[in-house]
Amino acid sequence: MIKFDFTNMLDTAVKNGIDKKDLLSSEVYSAYDLVQSNRGKGMQEWMDLPENQDQVVQDILDTAREVQSNFDYFVVLGIGGSALGSIAVFNALCHLYHNDLPKVARGNAPKFYVLDNADPERMRALFDCIDLKKTMFNCITKSGATSETMSQYLIVTNLLKQCLGEDYNKHIIATTSANKGNLIKLAREHSYKTFYIPEGVGGRFSVFSPVGLLPFAVLNIDIISLLKGASEMNKICSSRNLLTNPALMSAVIQKKAIDKGCNISVLMPYADKLKYIADWFCQLWAESIGKAVDKSGKVVNVGQTPVKSLGVTDQHSQVQLYAEGPYDKVVVFLECGFDTVYKIPEEKTEFDDVNFLCGQTLNQLMDSEMRATRYALTKANRLNYTITMPCVNAYYLGQLMQMFMLQTAYMGAIYNIDTYNQPGVEGGKNATYALFGRSGYQELAKELSVIPDEQFII
Amino acid sequence: MIKFDFTNMLDTAVKNGIDKKDLLSSEVYSAYDLVQSNRGKGMQEWMDLPENQDQVVQDILDTAREVQSNFDYFVVLGIGGSALGSIAVFNALCHLYHNDLPKVARGNAPKFYVLDNADPERMRALFDCIDLKKTMFNCITKSGATSETMSQYLIVTNLLKQCLGEDYNKHIIATTSANKGNLIKLAREHSYKTFYIPEGVGGRFSVFSPVGLLPFAVLNIDIISLLKGASEMNKICSSRNLLTNPALMSAVIQKKAIDKGCNISVLMPYADKLKYIADWFCQLWAESIGKAVDKSGKVVNVGQTPVKSLGVTDQHSQVQLYAEGPYDKVVVFLECGFDTVYKIPEEKTEFDDVNFLCGQTLNQLMDSEMRATRYALTKANRLNYTITMPCVNAYYLGQLMQMFMLQTAYMGAIYNIDTYNQPGVEGGKNATYALFGRSGYQELAKELSVIPDEQFII
Repeated sequence: MIKFDFTNMLDTAVKNGIDKKDLLSSEVYSAYDLVQSNRGKGMQEWMDLPENQDQVVQDILDTAREVQSNFDYFVVLGIGGSALGSIAVFNALCHLYHNDLPKVARGNAPKFYVLDNADPERMRALFDCIDLKKTMFNCITKSGATSETMSQYLIVTNLLKQCLGEDYNKHIIATTSANKGNLIKLAREHSYKTFYIPEGVGGRFSVFSPVGLLPFAVLNIDIISLLKGASEMNKICSSRNLLTNPALMSAVIQKKAIDKGCNISVLMPYADKLKYIADWFCQLWAESIGKAVDKSGKVVNVGQTPVKSLGVTDQHSQVQLYAEGPYDKVVVFLECGFDTVYKIPEEKTEFDDVNFLCGQTLNQLMDSEMRATRYALTKANRLNYTITMPCVNAYYLGQLMQMFMLQTAYMGAIYNIDTYNQPGVEGGKNATYALFGRSGYQELAKELSVIPDEQFII
Repeated sequence: MIKFDFTNMLDTAVKNGIDKKDLLSSEVYSAYDLVQSNRGKGMQEWMDLPENQDQVVQDILDTAREVQSNFDYFVVLGIGGSALGSIAVFNALCHLYHNDLPKVARGNAPKFYVLDNADPERMRALFDCIDLKKTMFNCITKSGATSETMSQYLIVTNLLKQCLGEDYNKHIIATTSANKGNLIKLAREHSYKTFYIPEGVGGRFSVFSPVGLLPFAVLNIDIISLLKGASEMNKICSSRNLLTNPALMSAVIQKKAIDKGCNISVLMPYADKLKYIADWFCQLWAESIGKAVDKSGKVVNVGQTPVKSLGVTDQHSQVQLYAEGPYDKVVVFLECGFDTVYKIPEEKTEFDDVNFLCGQTLNQLMDSEMRATRYALTKANRLNYTITMPCVNAYYLGQLMQMFMLQTAYMGAIYNIDTYNQPGVEGGKNATYALFGRSGYQELAKELSVIPDEQFII
């Protein structure tokens, strides 16, 4: 199982640490009850995804096999929650240079691209690399109204039609709401193969819905093990005992750290494969917990800024700040076993400060540097804890990601906020509509065109 | 020229903003004087790199041409400051899928890899992709004692020898100190082609030394324009007038923001090409400004945590937190022109919330979303400013990166700290030595082996 070591969060390990006695409080249990009693309801449908998808999993596996037989490129059109999970799991479980390998070495999986921005250079660059005739596009947007994704969709379908005529629709799979929005209508009109995102599954909680599962299956990732791991974590984290529930404990202990001034949380995996898990977590944590008002309407402006870091690489970039800067962060180490053992040659050089490496392994180096950095940060009285995965496979990754989602759900409940909305992005969306001259936004457009009295430009 | 718009940092634009009158103070001028009077001296040799490298630039260009003729792969062995600049500029100025293109489309440049971690999976994955006989390795470490880089060096040379015998040394270029450390000795012993890192140029300030310039030249990046841009910024930022010196102003205004509780600074480029510029800046800012003591030895624990974000992608991930969470950050927008204009097809759909996009361009979408997000954050009283690059080419990138380095130098001077050291990583380094059983570290090894009385593991 994945292990959690919170020792260095306590006042027994670091000055300004947390008193273990303060962890247990009534708010913890009401948060627990709120999350568990709403499991599978409202926007908490994501909690049931590891257990209720037998039928859709079969459809996904069949579709994936067909995609592998007929296509050399698989491109996800999606942004935010429609992209981050795919990037994270792809990077964790496929070869680190997947697209550089010949098809056989990829296990017949297509080359994989995620178009997660509206960047014109990226769009052009993609078309320089793929052969449209051999490309499957997976267009992912629950609402069918995401501007970036729908722009990509319009560009891609236009090109596909020019290139393939009638048959272009066999190059698009839509992953979207079954009932609402534009994309499902377009999918029905043009007979696209379609997968559904359940209504009660928001973007950042959708990685175990077809949003993630289809790309994973196309990439030969064992989605059944992934879901099994997630389901196992569901069981573990349904414990009402704080001391045996790592998701609840992670939420509570981060809350206590925030109360002590840690408005920053660093997630620092010690493995290149886990780098983008941190990106995925950053969205989950930032969008879910960063809220202006609580459920009673009180202005609270809560949130903790997630920072992604990578060990050992960022020891040479960020650890100086973590060790000596303000006491404003929690560092979460994420360590794992490796499939590969890489030995450094035995043969000694003439240099003492190199020789100690000879005959050891890169694995020992990674592990020692993690332990050394943790020791140094603890010594410098910096709050930190460690998550240990026995190895990086689909099963443990399923556990880890479900744990992070459950932690987020518990944290939202502790703060008594709406974990699942994102009202703070509406202002920007409306302003974009106004700048595009969309009807109904004339007033805002006028406001946007006002140049401030006092400008300050160099 | 690059433009800086600080309007939304002022109290005329946002509540809790900065009073323009407070920007000018005597500490600003003493910081200015300290930096300018030490130009080219001590650890400020980096300031002169844009102007004093005519000879080495010629050697680099000649070497690059030879590498292009004889090699299909170019691999950087380096970590931290030896890697981040190369990754940033490669991503900014080469094709976004450089390695996916055939050699002709790469302008005869080799495929490019940076091994910036000691990860055993990454090492193995690299060897799955390259042909040793056609690979040039650029080993970069000033001290020649960086454990990760030297481990890679030992592994690579061992394999090269097995594969190529005597001639293996023609596959290694060493970039290192001319006088000190192991790598220069190894280079002389084995007759590697060598480039030098001046003594007064630290890793995070080394991008315009051969550390960056050689890989850039191999990738067909116009290093002369890059240096010209950097030199131009040197001139601009040598102004003693705060109102015409963007580096000094950036430092001063961030300092004022930190004083108001903004312990976080987000750098948010609106272009995929600029994504890794944020990574490079994060090292520069974190390691230089995150310090426990000032020059008088007083404990200060200063620093501002840099966060990398990407527009518009992270509008769907982080902007909810930026708009509604705690008032604890400055968002720095980095916008640029694009070489490519990508039109969204004219043909209307039946959906209003998609139709407004039709006939527009992705460029307009990127630009409008940046302006809209900036408007929304300002409206929500969040401090932000904007850096505008006319386009992303070597010249403007040179300007931008030199500006960031100058800003960092001014900031360190304002705080009266040593901008160029990193004492906070020594603790971790020593603990790594101890865990590896290196002689002289037995005491520490003993301390590291102690299991704390109170463990807290789930």
